[in-house]
Amino acid sequence: MRILIEKADCLIYEDNDFNFKNSDVCIDGDLIVSVGKIPESFSAEGVIDGRGKLLIPGLINAHTHAYMTIFRNSADDLMFNDWLFGRILPMEDKLEDGDSYWGTMLGICEMIRTGTTCYLDMYIKGDENARAVCESGIRAVLSRGLVGKGNDKDGAMRLREAVDEISRWNGKGNGRLSFMLAPHAPYTCDPDYIKIVMQSAKELGIGINTHLSEGRVEIKEIYEKYGCSPIKLIEKTGMFSLKTVAAHCVHLSDEDIEILAENKVSVATNPVSNLKLANGVAPVPKLLKAGVNVCLGTDGAASNNTLNLFRELSMLTLIHKGVNEDSQAVSAKEGIKIATVNGAAALGLDGIGQIKVGMKADLALIDLNAVNMVPNNNPVAALAYSANGSEVQTVIVNGEILMENRELKGIDEERIRYEVAGIAKRIGA
Amino acid sequence: MRILIEKADCLIYEDNDFNFKNSDVCIDGDLIVSVGKIPESFSAEGVIDGRGKLLIPGLINAHTHAYMTIFRNSADDLMFNDWLFGRILPMEDKLEDGDSYWGTMLGICEMIRTGTTCYLDMYIKGDENARAVCESGIRAVLSRGLVGKGNDKDGAMRLREAVDEISRWNGKGNGRLSFMLAPHAPYTCDPDYIKIVMQSAKELGIGINTHLSEGRVEIKEIYEKYGCSPIKLIEKTGMFSLKTVAAHCVHLSDEDIEILAENKVSVATNPVSNLKLANGVAPVPKLLKAGVNVCLGTDGAASNNTLNLFRELSMLTLIHKGVNEDSQAVSAKEGIKIATVNGAAALGLDGIGQIKVGMKADLALIDLNAVNMVPNNNPVAALAYSANGSEVQTVIVNGEILMENRELKGIDEERIRYEVAGIAKRIGA
Repeated sequence: MRILIEKADCLIYEDNDFNFKNSDVCIDGDLIVSVGKIPESFSAEGVIDGRGKLLIPGLINAHTHAYMTIFRNSADDLMFNDWLFGRILPMEDKLEDGDSYWGTMLGICEMIRTGTTCYLDMYIKGDENARAVCESGIRAVLSRGLVGKGNDKDGAMRLREAVDEISRWNGKGNGRLSFMLAPHAPYTCDPDYIKIVMQSAKELGIGINTHLSEGRVEIKEIYEKYGCSPIKLIEKTGMFSLKTVAAHCVHLSDEDIEILAENKVSVATNPVSNLKLANGVAPVPKLLKAGVNVCLGTDGAASNNTLNLFRELSMLTLIHKGVNEDSQAVSAKEGIKIATVNGAAALGLDGIGQIKVGMKADLALIDLNAVNMVPNNNPVAALAYSANGSEVQTVIVNGEILMENRELKGIDEERIRYEVAGIAKRIGA
Repeated sequence: MRILIEKADCLIYEDNDFNFKNSDVCIDGDLIVSVGKIPESFSAEGVIDGRGKLLIPGLINAHTHAYMTIFRNSADDLMFNDWLFGRILPMEDKLEDGDSYWGTMLGICEMIRTGTTCYLDMYIKGDENARAVCESGIRAVLSRGLVGKGNDKDGAMRLREAVDEISRWNGKGNGRLSFMLAPHAPYTCDPDYIKIVMQSAKELGIGINTHLSEGRVEIKEIYEKYGCSPIKLIEKTGMFSLKTVAAHCVHLSDEDIEILAENKVSVATNPVSNLKLANGVAPVPKLLKAGVNVCLGTDGAASNNTLNLFRELSMLTLIHKGVNEDSQAVSAKEGIKIATVNGAAALGLDGIGQIKVGMKADLALIDLNAVNMVPNNNPVAALAYSANGSEVQTVIVNGEILMENRELKGIDEERIRYEVAGIAKRIGA
């Protein structure tokens, strides 16, 4: 479809800086074909009025577990072990076929509603998440969580299932769907298993999604077992020679940061989840200074408890100022770059994350009439510090309108709410 | 007016605990007259359907400067001195008569929209704020910010103006409007001036609103000048013998905390502002443990940049978990108590803050259909961790409906947006 977005204030990334420019934007098929002058040959089939609105590249959620929205607000104010072993895993054990699909659909609805157009997911059941992505219209990089030791049978089976799923789904949804492999964490995968997973990733030519250095217990366990930090351990496996997104990275030594920078590992920071599970505050300013590609994730709704990247962006741009007592730590512009450009780089999707000719049309239109956005003194600051996600009016992914004036298109939200409520009741969430 | 709210899940505070109970609530005039069985004699003039919704006591913003919404997103990512002296004060100097009214009205719109029904304000121009409170229908405790040294002329004039304003406006708006006096801070008021202000407060029988121990520069200055902490200095003036709300209290010694507890000083914590201005993180868990009445404020939009108490509540219940590495620090229930019951106690308004017969009808109705509130596993956790304020559908203050289904009643929001945009442009915000 050919869409014209008229006269919106467009967030343009140029020379490592963000500025708003009032502009017409033309979309043809899945691509942005002009920003500025409308090409003479362009005849729009649909027109969206952008006057008095901000047009931004859709936000990129670089770490989540979308199916876990089923567990939202069911495991709170608990110590980590009670949370994971007492609540989350027992509920996961009760999930039946089809449940992940509904949980993922709910997560996708929330992400679209709050301006997220692409996400990197780690999950436990195959196919259901891929189906949700294809049907909903969102863009995603999916990765089946893998747990294993050496060449144990269960680990090998999970990897085989993941590889099979990739062969069935990769590139589906008009190219919106791609994959990584996801060795879960150094405390659930041993180095031999990680090497086996790496081999598959190499053969498939895809990247790695993992959890690293999330909590103090993990650091202690890995030190006791291997005599080094989780980052150092994973470096030794050679995994960082593959394109890697490492979620969390809360507890890092200076040497760890150097290793991440040298190996061009992307770090997906999850400030809300890290606070809520009492893991702490990641050294994001230090990571940025070292040149690490930091991207932004919400983690799952069981530890957040939303998938709203606007909330995450405001947390990201606030917390490091306070904790480091530096009001210039992670500025609004840095935060927005982390939630867009850096996310695209982390996910290996060089066609998204900016409003630019030739890029995929993954866009969010933001209402400036919401009282919390008034007066419009500085829209960059407004995105980071004033917006809460409810100002997102219209969302386009791959050139398709997924939400218009807060109305989701082609997604039966009422059915999703009904199904998820039923699942939550059944599993005792 | 007699209003019946039918079958909402009502947040009830009992035995120092919160639970939801599905209930009918009857309002007659400004009061809640029943929670549960509808009195036989009650005939409703208006009925609100509460099915599938949460009814909560309106939130209480215990520290803000509502007029400063004019400066929203106009002074960000700056060091404190550049922020205050380089941006805020020069803009304040350009404010003209009437500007504070429009800024305050904008702030009030935002507060109503996000479920706040009462706030404690500190401002620089009299009458305009009072007029905004009366016209809008919100409840407020107002306090003119006072700056002075000894019995200097300017300080005396400000105090006289404040006292005059109180005589004109106290109790107006059907009792929604009350007052405190506000010696601004120990670094802008010397002990002699504070004593003069105290004397007036005693005569008027009202409380004190002030800033205390917000940043390290203040602490250093006070130590250098008086050889003690700001808390200790203010204790010596005798001010704590009056009912006092002390905003911020970020940097406190154990002795400071003891002084606050012994003197029953209420501490209004402003986590977002404290992070944004790089002042740090207040020791809220320690204050709570010491028995201090902690309440919650947004501070002004120049340092937040919203007046949304739901964002503040989520920050309050997240940050102390992460910073103290204790996932049980400031639980969802504690956070809600801080934003309601404790706020009422701090402001000396014992008729608000709870859903209870005989209390003022200050209420907010919350949509549970918003995807970020689904599934409804635990509504208490949902309020703290999932809500962003946009789920607030209907707001009642003093028995009057101020917002119904997201539509503000009797407030011309478009005019307010227009006027504030003009002011912001004029002053170079």
